[in-house]
Amino acid sequence: MQEYSSRQQHRQTLRECGRLPDGFRIAVSSLQFVPEERPSTDPFNMNLSLILADEPCSSFGLSLTKNRMPGAPIMRARAVLGAESLQGILVNNRVANVCTETGVEDAGELLACLGGQLGIDPAVLLSSSTGIIGWRLPLEPMKAAVPELVARLGHDSLLAVAEAIMTTDAFPKLRRADLAGGGSIVGIAKGAGMIEPNMATMLSFILTDLDIPREVLREELATAVEAGFNRISVDGDQSTSDMVVALASGRREKPDTDEFGEALRLICRQLAEDVVRNGEGTRHVLRVTVSGAESEQQAAAVGKAVVNSPLVKTALYGNDPNVGRIIAAVGDYCGNHDIAIDSHNVRLSIGEESVFSDGSFHLDKAKELRLSHYLKNAELRHSTGLEYPPHEMCVEIAIDLGLRSATTTVYGSDLSDEYVRINADYRT
Amino acid sequence: MQEYSSRQQHRQTLRECGRLPDGFRIAVSSLQFVPEERPSTDPFNMNLSLILADEPCSSFGLSLTKNRMPGAPIMRARAVLGAESLQGILVNNRVANVCTETGVEDAGELLACLGGQLGIDPAVLLSSSTGIIGWRLPLEPMKAAVPELVARLGHDSLLAVAEAIMTTDAFPKLRRADLAGGGSIVGIAKGAGMIEPNMATMLSFILTDLDIPREVLREELATAVEAGFNRISVDGDQSTSDMVVALASGRREKPDTDEFGEALRLICRQLAEDVVRNGEGTRHVLRVTVSGAESEQQAAAVGKAVVNSPLVKTALYGNDPNVGRIIAAVGDYCGNHDIAIDSHNVRLSIGEESVFSDGSFHLDKAKELRLSHYLKNAELRHSTGLEYPPHEMCVEIAIDLGLRSATTTVYGSDLSDEYVRINADYRT
Repeated sequence: MQEYSSRQQHRQTLRECGRLPDGFRIAVSSLQFVPEERPSTDPFNMNLSLILADEPCSSFGLSLTKNRMPGAPIMRARAVLGAESLQGILVNNRVANVCTETGVEDAGELLACLGGQLGIDPAVLLSSSTGIIGWRLPLEPMKAAVPELVARLGHDSLLAVAEAIMTTDAFPKLRRADLAGGGSIVGIAKGAGMIEPNMATMLSFILTDLDIPREVLREELATAVEAGFNRISVDGDQSTSDMVVALASGRREKPDTDEFGEALRLICRQLAEDVVRNGEGTRHVLRVTVSGAESEQQAAAVGKAVVNSPLVKTALYGNDPNVGRIIAAVGDYCGNHDIAIDSHNVRLSIGEESVFSDGSFHLDKAKELRLSHYLKNAELRHSTGLEYPPHEMCVEIAIDLGLRSATTTVYGSDLSDEYVRINADYRT
Repeated sequence: MQEYSSRQQHRQTLRECGRLPDGFRIAVSSLQFVPEERPSTDPFNMNLSLILADEPCSSFGLSLTKNRMPGAPIMRARAVLGAESLQGILVNNRVANVCTETGVEDAGELLACLGGQLGIDPAVLLSSSTGIIGWRLPLEPMKAAVPELVARLGHDSLLAVAEAIMTTDAFPKLRRADLAGGGSIVGIAKGAGMIEPNMATMLSFILTDLDIPREVLREELATAVEAGFNRISVDGDQSTSDMVVALASGRREKPDTDEFGEALRLICRQLAEDVVRNGEGTRHVLRVTVSGAESEQQAAAVGKAVVNSPLVKTALYGNDPNVGRIIAAVGDYCGNHDIAIDSHNVRLSIGEESVFSDGSFHLDKAKELRLSHYLKNAELRHSTGLEYPPHEMCVEIAIDLGLRSATTTVYGSDLSDEYVRINADYRT
């Protein structure tokens, strides 16, 4: 298995990374509209993207948000889960199509229009929307753009879609694995939350030409999503529209299942990390490994409590090794959830430095300076000309709860004043 | 019952508000020290405050953090809970005395020194510390300051202590109730989290001269803390050192219990709101009332999910009525906690405006403008010369879950870039 990275590589390499697996075509288009809910009459831009398999795929998998106020595309996707096959996905940005009076009908009308143009049954099509919650889809301009979109269908790199679904993303998120026996998996994602402030949506689409039975694909996808996307948090907000779709065209011979699963997990983990690393507000990516937990779920929950603590996030943003806040966040979560940690068995280290063990902190002036330097070194300094993150370093935080042996790793980002500005001002 | 507000009143009124109940004395002092864990040799200032009853009080109550990595004062307070009586509390700021190798011994040595100076058993004394987690108490300078502190004991207003425990607080938090039949309750607090960025600690001390049996006091305190302090969140971080202490000198005749309980609940709720309203980063106080819940705990949890959502907080900071984020936060929490809300029964209003009902948003240009204006009007604009908040307005958010009939109200604050700057830079 060979893996590719979207980072620190020039555009040509990225295009190559997004080479479509056999049996798929794509198209992208854009349009303008004026939201009816907004006082100003300035037009908004919207991108439409289409991912289409040559034939209906009986092997497909979906992982959908658990948010109890789901968007119309999520409701439709739930219904599609039991269907015989899936052939295509129509994606728009700007408007998330969540809880409007006509949201489900709007999505249906749009897909009927697309199905008509393609000459296929709309029942094998999914829509996926990301953007502002509460606004209606601009249905007429979208329908008017469909013929041009269909006319553009071709074998361009999936990079085009990875870019079209970007909004305030700093770079397209695209990952690929080529399997030893032939065949490939290519995945794209757009970021959410902190780095997608007016979107609050995480979308990912994963294509493969391998002949994977549906049940195997779904099982492997569930595992990969759990260990990848479900282990990141930028601001603790699960959106109304989160969606991961995997689609297998079956053009290549069934590979060794272990290799397929491993490649899928790798891609989901890499895309998840790309989502956290992406964007304007993020200056540090935090990789928190929690060990000594009673279960993986517990380890993940403690890790998320740390990466979601505003006090931890702001300290790290400021390159301030304020380790007391990490211990406080662990103690807070465990206290509120009756997890009987004993402070004498808890250990904490940052990078190579042990800072807490045997019930107490071990801090001194020299260690404080080394930790500050470590944080500065891990900082992402986005310059305007830089298309991709300058490095893949994380702030490595290791927490041993001292209970049992379960371990997991979660990813998060720091909290910057840039995040606040973007999120406070985005509609002005 | 007569109540006083610490807000919009000049200093003389505040001093009057802090008039000590019978049977108590106070003292405040300050000192300088150089933390041994810090590379720089610049000295830090620390305030010491002492609250002392004339006699040991058999009626006292404590409400302590559930954080599983508690500070030394919390561990000592837990042991004191079953003791016969409590007579005094020694409070320091700057260093929280959490998880250092000698923390418990340090607190014991300090109280032994104080007990010696006062000629009383140190077992009736509590310590309370707020400040940086992980640093050792500067024991020698603190002990050296004790004789002066004891010499200053007198009947000054409790305002002196409310100010001495301030750190980055914008104003002292002080509330009083005089009961109809005579006797009074006076409470002070210091803020935490967002508005106490390098402290992360909420402390409150409540004194009364009323003759309340210990068990009644504790029961009423538990109720008042639950409906007051336990209903606020500035950043979701429960500290290692949160502590509320109530002390009754018993000098005044036992009042009508209902009136006492009502007064205590009022003071806790007012002090809690003061904590949220306090401070540099906060520009809007959010009052979220959740109704139609299955239990008060569930209502409180949903409300806290809303006030802790960074996307909600930043939008409100920017006076942006992005109501989709509120609905997304409700759906997120309910989805993750298996709360079976039906979007068709959920209702949301901001101020007087209904924005969500019957499964969909109801937004238009005129409503959007009215909501923006409402948010701007509720903004706290701290000018440098202003000692107290300019008004007591909140952003009123009402959420009906449409399940059963439980209701509660939680308080939170918005998220500003000033918060991030303070928390990122505080040790530089």
